[in-house]
Amino acid sequence: MHIAIIGAAGMIGRKLSERLVADGSLGGHAVNRLTLVDVIEPGRPAGFAGRVDASAVDISVPGQAARIVGTRPDVIFHLAAIVSAEAELDFEKGYGINLEGTRALFEAIRLAHLDDGYRPCVVFTSSIAVFGAPMPDVIPDDFNLTPLTSYGTQKAMSELLLADYTRRGFIDGIGIRLPTVCVRPGKPNKAASGFFSGIIREPLAGQPAILPVPDTVRHWHASPRSAIGFLIHAASIDLQPLGARRSLTMPGVSASVGEQIEALRSIAGEKAVSLIRREPDELVMKIVGGWAKAFAPERATSLGFVAETTFEEIIRVHIEDELGGRI
Amino acid sequence: MHIAIIGAAGMIGRKLSERLVADGSLGGHAVNRLTLVDVIEPGRPAGFAGRVDASAVDISVPGQAARIVGTRPDVIFHLAAIVSAEAELDFEKGYGINLEGTRALFEAIRLAHLDDGYRPCVVFTSSIAVFGAPMPDVIPDDFNLTPLTSYGTQKAMSELLLADYTRRGFIDGIGIRLPTVCVRPGKPNKAASGFFSGIIREPLAGQPAILPVPDTVRHWHASPRSAIGFLIHAASIDLQPLGARRSLTMPGVSASVGEQIEALRSIAGEKAVSLIRREPDELVMKIVGGWAKAFAPERATSLGFVAETTFEEIIRVHIEDELGGRI
Repeated sequence: MHIAIIGAAGMIGRKLSERLVADGSLGGHAVNRLTLVDVIEPGRPAGFAGRVDASAVDISVPGQAARIVGTRPDVIFHLAAIVSAEAELDFEKGYGINLEGTRALFEAIRLAHLDDGYRPCVVFTSSIAVFGAPMPDVIPDDFNLTPLTSYGTQKAMSELLLADYTRRGFIDGIGIRLPTVCVRPGKPNKAASGFFSGIIREPLAGQPAILPVPDTVRHWHASPRSAIGFLIHAASIDLQPLGARRSLTMPGVSASVGEQIEALRSIAGEKAVSLIRREPDELVMKIVGGWAKAFAPERATSLGFVAETTFEEIIRVHIEDELGGRI
Repeated sequence: MHIAIIGAAGMIGRKLSERLVADGSLGGHAVNRLTLVDVIEPGRPAGFAGRVDASAVDISVPGQAARIVGTRPDVIFHLAAIVSAEAELDFEKGYGINLEGTRALFEAIRLAHLDDGYRPCVVFTSSIAVFGAPMPDVIPDDFNLTPLTSYGTQKAMSELLLADYTRRGFIDGIGIRLPTVCVRPGKPNKAASGFFSGIIREPLAGQPAILPVPDTVRHWHASPRSAIGFLIHAASIDLQPLGARRSLTMPGVSASVGEQIEALRSIAGEKAVSLIRREPDELVMKIVGGWAKAFAPERATSLGFVAETTFEEIIRVHIEDELGGRI
């Protein structure tokens, strides 16, 4: 089986590559070839016996998507995206990559389909940013697409494209609306959602963390391990039962910041919690105030997608996967 | 006030031009200039004292949308579209006009906005084709976008663009999800929805009509007069109360084919009804089976949008507007 990952240099892309190499198979098929692309050349995962092609590709540049499609991967993971904050700051870049890049990829596949009937499985990472306030406290699967950012708009538009290209028979597509991935490894970043990871990650490492919102703020989370699990599961199951609705909200943990902090206390004690410094930030509060609090992801759950069920579990996954099991 | 109509040569475009000329004003402002464009040069409405520029423009061709925007209309009615059946048959043409054409128009406005702060009111005709089965019998305003055609996909994507360009301050946009317009004047056409008009229009004119679906099929209708009313109202009201959700399902009449026929009988008698010939068509039944039966268009109603309330009324509007009041 030949698998392509577009956006392979990002955190999710790297973890997905490593998982595929570790598993050696996907949905019961041996993986013997990986095509890894990103706007910068992705690293090669260690320990893979098959062929790896890694290269710098910008799918929004005419002709570039066709280079990937020309190798006829069986499965394409399309993870490439300009993130929320950058897409908001740079309108043209956001639409260029997140909308036109996706459309260029799907068009390259459609033209290949017209040539020889090529029809890959395409797993697309969408986001719960396709939803925006006002929303019910628990959002059902049939809630309308109401993004409040350009990023969310581009993801919602791509979901619609994915469904139509699938309906027309050009791809066998599935869109995975990722919860806010937490605890993200690595350095703090300036994403509005960054503090959700920061208030866990930094104290576990003995570092101070800033909390810009009140403890009552509630949001929807899953670990990086679960995010990779969603992608693997999406590429492993029969997608026919999805019918025409090809994008699914993924399961996750609905936790308030207060509950996050209590989970940290129960695992790492008072000293860790004392490293969290409250510095209210009006802008972050305003952005986060429009975000989803919880979902009832019944379709995904019935199809076998699973995430953590408590925030403690999310913290333990971070400790296992990033801190060698010790704090 | 300067008003541009893109798609001015179609049925709705012509009726809208005529209505604007007849009213002489829009939202309390005198109309002194009309810019009418379509892929073929639109006719000029009779009896208008102001300036009329009519020309052939394809907004999907680079640079063409900028020609319209360059004249800085205060209000732009964007009605141009490849219709449902054609967009399904010609994938590239549908996306070319319905998605890329809309995006080219919005981009031309955005660039003008960056130049001089230009921010027109944009009234976009969307469609209830943004919804597809499975659906509840009565569809609420917050139901998700689930198109089952490329046309519906392109309309849904354009709705999302409209909301984002509005949120970013480039346009003041509103999307109007038109019910199936009925009774359409003119000749029978091959649209899957054509029979809804045909079984009324032809018998009223003493002509036979073919009914390809069972009497139990239920759908959502409004007259051409109401459709024009929606557009005029949309351009006349303060759009601020819409918030971020800029597309509205319009009110209409939920009628089964059986109820349509009873309405015809009550107005035009048994002889008219006897001109309807039942010729079941599996393909049409399959297509129409995925369509919406009824809506609860509470947002539009609360903003003052009004349609007919009975199918008899829809037939009487046809007799008044198209048949000189007599049958």
